[in-house]
Amino acid sequence: MSSHSTEDGGPTRQRLIDVAIELFKHHSVAGTSLQMISDELGLTKSAIYHHFRTRDELLSAVMEPVVSEVSALVDAAERHRGARARADHMLTGYAALAATNRELLPLLTGDPGVVALLRTRAEWAAVVKRQMALLAGVEPGLGGQVKAALVMSGIASAAGADYGDVDDAALRDQLIAAGRRTLGLRASRD
Amino acid sequence: MSSHSTEDGGPTRQRLIDVAIELFKHHSVAGTSLQMISDELGLTKSAIYHHFRTRDELLSAVMEPVVSEVSALVDAAERHRGARARADHMLTGYAALAATNRELLPLLTGDPGVVALLRTRAEWAAVVKRQMALLAGVEPGLGGQVKAALVMSGIASAAGADYGDVDDAALRDQLIAAGRRTLGLRASRD
Repeated sequence: MSSHSTEDGGPTRQRLIDVAIELFKHHSVAGTSLQMISDELGLTKSAIYHHFRTRDELLSAVMEPVVSEVSALVDAAERHRGARARADHMLTGYAALAATNRELLPLLTGDPGVVALLRTRAEWAAVVKRQMALLAGVEPGLGGQVKAALVMSGIASAAGADYGDVDDAALRDQLIAAGRRTLGLRASRD
Repeated sequence: MSSHSTEDGGPTRQRLIDVAIELFKHHSVAGTSLQMISDELGLTKSAIYHHFRTRDELLSAVMEPVVSEVSALVDAAERHRGARARADHMLTGYAALAATNRELLPLLTGDPGVVALLRTRAEWAAVVKRQMALLAGVEPGLGGQVKAALVMSGIASAAGADYGDVDDAALRDQLIAAGRRTLGLRASRD
């Protein structure tokens, strides 16, 4: 998974994904072509086609691990009893994910190319909807929905900001503290 | 300002800006060419060149009114005494701006094209920095910085979410309530 070339010397799937994330971040998804990715790696486009036929296929591969993690979090959160316990499980797990994926998370919540792809993947859109419902469940009505939207996109964006040299655990803890305040959750005792 | 054609029947500056916002939102800044904008309006590219020579000139024109409003808010907020009063002025003004610019604000905080343009406009970057400092001033250290980043990008993104038929004032009030909680500010008495 982590080696950067295959036996025949071509790029591995993971290397393409890493370069794609970097370019998506700086040029947005729609502003990044497969040509730009192959140029960046000094490859021909056919070397990329071996792994990904379209930019959306590559974007799907970028998103897949994160959506899988969020999906597992949503499943686990929904098993808790009580709206507060469910929201807190979702919040703390999402903050941890954001703190360890500071490059990727801002891209995945703000880019119109990601939004467009989510529209074509009903099972992924359903995960995002369940995540929002878990966070919004603490407070009925518009107030809960606005707070959930603010926490969800705010955590993803705030994780990508520049705080100097801050480790993942310290950032995660601050994201959790901020999110709990917004949602009106108390710190748990564990 | 609001008429959609000039005396010679060409597009007005404002019409170009409106169409650009729409396309930037759906395709990101880097994914939108002046050609796409002229196609959308059924024009030749030269009709656009009359107003804007580059996409960045057009993006500057899109951003300018919002940056001016934020700049005025920052000036007014900084005149208050006390970190809490300053943060609350900044927060309430920004929430009102976001609620009345739901299309534009999510674009202006998440798009890499906007980030890149801000890097070339030192006076605009300074406004954003002062805005962040005002929001972060309530709590020293990393906690205050993370909460400020979460509120600033969270408000912009949350304003663009779909809540059904909600008017600007109701949305603004909920954004303010959420932001005050996150920053640890009490509701003011007025």
